[in-house]
Amino acid sequence: MTEPIRIMGICGSYGLDSANGHMIDLVKNECSKLGAEVIIWDNKQNPLPFIGEDGCWDHPNVKMFKDMADSVDAFILSSPEYHGTMSGVMKNSIDWLSFDQTSGKVFGLISTLGGQANTTTLNHMRTSVRWMHGWAIPEQLVMANIKNTFNQNGEIIDMKLNERLIKFANSLCSNTIKLRR
Amino acid sequence: MTEPIRIMGICGSYGLDSANGHMIDLVKNECSKLGAEVIIWDNKQNPLPFIGEDGCWDHPNVKMFKDMADSVDAFILSSPEYHGTMSGVMKNSIDWLSFDQTSGKVFGLISTLGGQANTTTLNHMRTSVRWMHGWAIPEQLVMANIKNTFNQNGEIIDMKLNERLIKFANSLCSNTIKLRR
Amino acid sequence: MTEPIRIMGICGSYGLDSANGHMIDLVKNECSKLGAEVIIWDNKQNPLPFIGEDGCWDHPNVKMFKDMADSVDAFILSSPEYHGTMSGVMKNSIDWLSFDQTSGKVFGLISTLGGQANTTTLNHMRTSVRWMHGWAIPEQLVMANIKNTFNQNGEIIDMKLNERLIKFANSLCSNTIKLRR
Amino acid sequence: MTEPIRIMGICGSYGLDSANGHMIDLVKNECSKLGAEVIIWDNKQNPLPFIGEDGCWDHPNVKMFKDMADSVDAFILSSPEYHGTMSGVMKNSIDWLSFDQTSGKVFGLISTLGGQANTTTLNHMRTSVRWMHGWAIPEQLVMANIKNTFNQNGEIIDMKLNERLIKFANSLCSNTIKLRR
Repeated sequence: MTEPIRIMGICGSYGLDSANGHMIDLVKNECSKLGAEVIIWDNKQNPLPFIGEDGCWDHPNVKMFKDMADSVDAFILSSPEYHGTMSGVMKNSIDWLSFDQTSGKVFGLISTLGGQANTTTLNHMRTSVRWMHGWAIPEQLVMANIKNTFNQNGEIIDMKLNERLIKFANSLCSNTIKLRR
Repeated sequence: MTEPIRIMGICGSYGLDSANGHMIDLVKNECSKLGAEVIIWDNKQNPLPFIGEDGCWDHPNVKMFKDMADSVDAFILSSPEYHGTMSGVMKNSIDWLSFDQTSGKVFGLISTLGGQANTTTLNHMRTSVRWMHGWAIPEQLVMANIKNTFNQNGEIIDMKLNERLIKFANSLCSNTIKLRR
Repeated sequence: MTEPIRIMGICGSYGLDSANGHMIDLVKNECSKLGAEVIIWDNKQNPLPFIGEDGCWDHPNVKMFKDMADSVDAFILSSPEYHGTMSGVMKNSIDWLSFDQTSGKVFGLISTLGGQANTTTLNHMRTSVRWMHGWAIPEQLVMANIKNTFNQNGEIIDMKLNERLIKFANSLCSNTIKLRR
Repeated sequence: MTEPIRIMGICGSYGLDSANGHMIDLVKNECSKLGAEVIIWDNKQNPLPFIGEDGCWDHPNVKMFKDMADSVDAFILSSPEYHGTMSGVMKNSIDWLSFDQTSGKVFGLISTLGGQANTTTLNHMRTSVRWMHGWAIPEQLVMANIKNTFNQNGEIIDMKLNERLIKFANSLCSNTIKLRR
């Protein structure tokens, strides 16, 4: 019998009370149905310092972040697109990961945008995943016009996008099992 | 008679006492010879907050950063490559710029690497520049094996790389004059 | 007095009787109003061989293509997006250009898509332009859902997209004058 | 018992008598040791037409190419870098593949360069693989200064690069087995 898989969500908005935080929650719900455990890094609660900031190397939040990353089989990265690529918050979080925590692991990528669809953020995160020796699943979520994406209950209005989210969660879980070290 | 051009250096390492800070200094020297003024943002002295952090929108350093960006005709971006793209420090700095400060302006791009040459960081910054409605000059500097790049006086050992730096500074200054709004 | 600028259109679809060929025509019209001459490479009439194909190096069409490229100050590249990047037809055309024909020249980039908007093709062409030592203007055209873009008279239905096209042509012409060697 | 895996090599140089063709051969040797069968598309023998060329849709070589792609579990793509991205020959070959032939399959990526190392070609091919719903393995081969890469027997001189090639072949084979549909 295989152990249940464990997935860590990392949010490219500073707080989880954001569209990106919400997207991770929705994916978490689907992954839970499949028996996977999803834990989410709460950067507002436990802010990561910038790489190079005074005291950063021994910062307790960095240790906590790395311990959480060590404990998982897969990651969800959900970032807004700012000036054509992932946010500084997302990139600084990625900067704190090292091969020990990422090599051979599986990543699911989500990008939210204020305006029309684009995938530059996803492409750049995909490149970063490869540089961490990880696998980004082919399925990816682009959430354009993000302010009009959810209804009052926080559900995705566009049924096709919702189906994509379900497929995304399925691919993330099933391929993590296949590729698990 | 044209007014002298003014260029702002932004460093993707946290402090200016880094290879990236040093690269900006070297370019500054060359630009000065051409009559341009180069001012450098000292992030360690005046740390920028993360986008979304409590109090970030009214942070005095953000105002100072934006004022400096408003005052220039061109930018130098010098970033280390972490996990296949620019650092979080660089991206968060870029995130604080808006069209008012960047549209139609000229950017010179520099990437430093611990290991062998690569241009992914430059390509990603180039994409960001376009999203800020700016111009990235075709000349760009890749400084591989950065620990062995400088001699004890801080000069670039490889004469060809040094020539590239001089051409880079020349292109930055002359094309800023051509493209200035 | 400045000489009128000359621009070469290169189409990423095999024939000019395509959405990409049509986009070049529309930009040509705007550029003509600004006094620029636009000449278009007709690949169907004068097919370029593949790089490496028998007899390719002395192929008369290659010579004609290079001569045309030599004679211009700027380029329009208009490509469909196939599998997330420019077409093979576009890339093979680019492969035939050398620094003599491209260094310091200005490029305007257009991407057409069958489905929703994306800019990967534009980003990849922008990277290629930099590798040819050229300048890609910040303005760029993404034509999504291309089958529904034009009315029966071949005009762009969406007025905002049409305005973007006019700005694109203006930027291409005015910045070519500024940057001309 | 699992069926042996089958891998198709696609060369971004026109002929197989090229550094890219040779790289595919070397990977083939390693994959053979692991029990995999590698078949190589010989584009010089059976040239693919350009997408859109007269008669292209019913071209017998296209059918042969697609049949070969249908029959495999994985692909090796080996391309020279021309003007900062894959060759037109490689892109046109990719253009002929459709989801039926690529979805869920595994890709190993190789880039050869005349000069110093760079990964733009690999990054762009990686993007294309994702658009084909495929998986690109994290291991990838950059062969810089390609003219000095091989000794008279066609072996890779740099032992570290040779080790990377062996790891590359191992990853390609073992992960194809894990991910096989």
